Amino acid sequence: MGNGSLGFVLHNKRYKGLCILHANLASATELHVFTSNRELMVKLPRHCWLFYNRADLRCPELCSPRCPGLQPQLQLSATALSSVHLSGGTTVLPVAADAMQGYSHPSLIKLLQQPQNLSTFINRPALGILPPENFSERLKESLLSVAPKGLPQVMTMACGSCSNENAFKLIFMWYRNKERGRNNVTKEELESCMINQPPGCPDYAMLSFMGGFHGRTFGCLATTHSKAIHKLDIPSLDWPIAPFPRLKYPLEDFVKENQQEEARCLEEVEDLIVKYRKKKKIVAGIIIEPIQSEGGDNHASDDFFRKLRDIARKHGCAFLVDEVQTGGGCTGKFWAHEHWGLDDPADVVTFSKKMMTGGFFHKEEFRPNAPYRIFNTWLGDPSKNLLLAEVIRVIKREDLINNAAHAGKALLTGLLDLQARYPHLISRVRGRGTFCSFDTPNDATRNKLITIARNKGVVLGGCGDRSIRFRPTLIFKDHHAHLFLNIFSDILANFK
Amino acid sequence: MGNGSLGFVLHNKRYKGLCILHANLASATELHVFTSNRELMVKLPRHCWLFYNRADLRCPELCSPRCPGLQPQLQLSATALSSVHLSGGTTVLPVAADAMQGYSHPSLIKLLQQPQNLSTFINRPALGILPPENFSERLKESLLSVAPKGLPQVMTMACGSCSNENAFKLIFMWYRNKERGRNNVTKEELESCMINQPPGCPDYAMLSFMGGFHGRTFGCLATTHSKAIHKLDIPSLDWPIAPFPRLKYPLEDFVKENQQEEARCLEEVEDLIVKYRKKKKIVAGIIIEPIQSEGGDNHASDDFFRKLRDIARKHGCAFLVDEVQTGGGCTGKFWAHEHWGLDDPADVVTFSKKMMTGGFFHKEEFRPNAPYRIFNTWLGDPSKNLLLAEVIRVIKREDLINNAAHAGKALLTGLLDLQARYPHLISRVRGRGTFCSFDTPNDATRNKLITIARNKGVVLGGCGDRSIRFRPTLIFKDHHAHLFLNIFSDILANFK
Repeated sequence: MGNGSLGFVLHNKRYKGLCILHANLASATELHVFTSNRELMVKLPRHCWLFYNRADLRCPELCSPRCPGLQPQLQLSATALSSVHLSGGTTVLPVAADAMQGYSHPSLIKLLQQPQNLSTFINRPALGILPPENFSERLKESLLSVAPKGLPQVMTMACGSCSNENAFKLIFMWYRNKERGRNNVTKEELESCMINQPPGCPDYAMLSFMGGFHGRTFGCLATTHSKAIHKLDIPSLDWPIAPFPRLKYPLEDFVKENQQEEARCLEEVEDLIVKYRKKKKIVAGIIIEPIQSEGGDNHASDDFFRKLRDIARKHGCAFLVDEVQTGGGCTGKFWAHEHWGLDDPADVVTFSKKMMTGGFFHKEEFRPNAPYRIFNTWLGDPSKNLLLAEVIRVIKREDLINNAAHAGKALLTGLLDLQARYPHLISRVRGRGTFCSFDTPNDATRNKLITIARNKGVVLGGCGDRSIRFRPTLIFKDHHAHLFLNIFSDILANFK
Repeated sequence: MGNGSLGFVLHNKRYKGLCILHANLASATELHVFTSNRELMVKLPRHCWLFYNRADLRCPELCSPRCPGLQPQLQLSATALSSVHLSGGTTVLPVAADAMQGYSHPSLIKLLQQPQNLSTFINRPALGILPPENFSERLKESLLSVAPKGLPQVMTMACGSCSNENAFKLIFMWYRNKERGRNNVTKEELESCMINQPPGCPDYAMLSFMGGFHGRTFGCLATTHSKAIHKLDIPSLDWPIAPFPRLKYPLEDFVKENQQEEARCLEEVEDLIVKYRKKKKIVAGIIIEPIQSEGGDNHASDDFFRKLRDIARKHGCAFLVDEVQTGGGCTGKFWAHEHWGLDDPADVVTFSKKMMTGGFFHKEEFRPNAPYRIFNTWLGDPSKNLLLAEVIRVIKREDLINNAAHAGKALLTGLLDLQARYPHLISRVRGRGTFCSFDTPNDATRNKLITIARNKGVVLGGCGDRSIRFRPTLIFKDHHAHLFLNIFSDILANFK
């Protein structure tokens, strides 16, 4: 979601989608609401949810108790599941959202109303010591039911940053235990670690990629290289950073160039591992996103990732795939890295955001060798796991992963068509599932396109220098893609 | 809470207290339940809650649906609010708990059952972009209503580690902006920060204390020095570590020695700041707990902390007080550092655990100079804030902070009396409010005392090398203290 956005929740009988309209939140009391005809300025609380109830087309609850100010100024009428036409002719499309199942899903409301679930929401336990009854069974219904192949172990965490931080720790412990072999921990290690010094705190590193984003706490931030605002003024670690391939599009016209580019990056990875080892800094693991999201929706080929996995194994480094943004089905598989067809699975896969709880999956051999080595007070939150189990049931029942693959194909095909017709405005169309994006000529054009689209009720988000990205919910269907493509085609035709 | 603990929840009309009995959780299906007569071994799920309903003294719900296995083996009868006698004569006392108001408090159940609150629990927003309606008002009802004097700004986070990590970042940004003055950020800074190098990532440090615990993510872990298991095998940062005073007890007999010890530690703090600056590593902030909790309940005088605050200011360092464990009222003031009577408030105060949400308070001048500098996807969770607001209402209504001060005095007085009678078993009695502790001669004696007490239904926790610590809920009353003291007096009288 972008700066100063405003969330519109669409309610109907089966699904609820979230739409974001951009708004000026600099003032706490004014919101700008855009229709095709004009920009409304409304005196309001900072945040408002528009509840739309399909059973009541001229919905009296339109603005619900939460935003009475909007009520006189907007009228909704329904045309399609999860999309809404405003009275000015504006269609509000849920093309930027972060809840897989849409918001206020009735199954989740039901879940919360069941008396036996109340305690889970009120009494947050220290999960590592006092797990709720049958918590391992609960994990089987939720996270373990969607575990990537070959990663049977799961650990829950509170957020994406904690997930990556603890995955790094898991990897460092695993690496040190490999080095240690059958030797015991020495007194020198136990003493030196207390004052942050080697050998107890060894000079290990995670290798990351330029353009990557893995979080904002100190360990994560040392592997994040997407925007200066994340990193400025914060001390960091001298850990190696490899280039991420910059592919040329359309891919079929640049096969050889792109292969060379990927080979260059892989070579640099190996060089960095060797170079850092020479200066006694050991690369214990490699972290990468399947699609660099914050960094501009940068893709690489499945072959690139397979070869990277091989390099990691060759050099004894753990291979950590960060699925915090890509996980959860939007790419047309539950985990984006499942597209790669790895022979040897990733060692650790982290998740958060749409998964409602943070955490990571890992191979058996990465299991900590003693209790309390990966630990914190809460270790996640069983109430989030309860919600996730229900969301996963909805996803399976409604076949929403295949829906994302299908709707994504409609979206990508349409974008490629627009690119062919408006090559001066659209380039580098790319995507997997509905996780699509394209480039515009420059930042100014990108922002102008986003504004025009927004005024037509289509909410788009930017990423990188001049890209536009799609992040719809899993309930985004083919007809939403067509609705979007029609509107955007008009925008491009009339763009000056 | 200790390893392999088992939670017993006591229900009655007004309050619910949590008791922990230690249990062997090595096996997933066996629990050891201790009464005064014998140790029961029960085939059970890993976790069980014993619900006790005051209105039904021979409670049929004793074991509730959650642990049918226990039902035939234990009978409860009530004698006192929030404490329970088992049929074998065992009293179960809530002397180790981590929820201020006790568990399953009826006010919280009511809160969750109100339809207007459902959305808060189901639809978790990105708080930094899409705060719920009137969220700032909600913060005034909860966190801001208990803000430490002089710290009007609050930022929420998901957990204690994230709170400290982001407090460090806030401090580093503040420090760099001070250095920068009216100069703009340079191109060199913007470029170098992307690859983890100075000047964009300056060589700043936080000064911490031996024995301190501030969390387990990379930044936090560099300031944590309580146990080797937290730090072993994890790379760290070369940040300065000062000694924390080791006071001699009883305090009145060692006034001069303790003053000298504190002066020595303060001198070392100043020396470290100067020494690190000489090697171009700038101490931007000092982090300290009001009572070193994980490290063994180590106290220092109010005068020590006031002088430390002065040193921080003198050297231009921020003063960060970590109240993750001490905050929330157990010391007899809502924040433990309020006992110090600082002229100039701390700059940043972090919290989590009993506060249900993580976060930090800070002075106006520490407010980030641009949006998105302190940021993450969730920035906490409004559902936790909703619960906290209710908990704070209960605390104020029931005057539970004063209760903690009062009950704590009864507990401490009694412990001092026991120390006078059994000096070979109890020493260094110390505490503030109910946040009390004492030392035993050695680890073996400590563990034996904990076991005997447990078999009499009194749950105690250990900390440090040979200390026993108290962490009751805020509903622990004078009569609980007396009940404990009577039982423990017998234990000491018969100890061999």
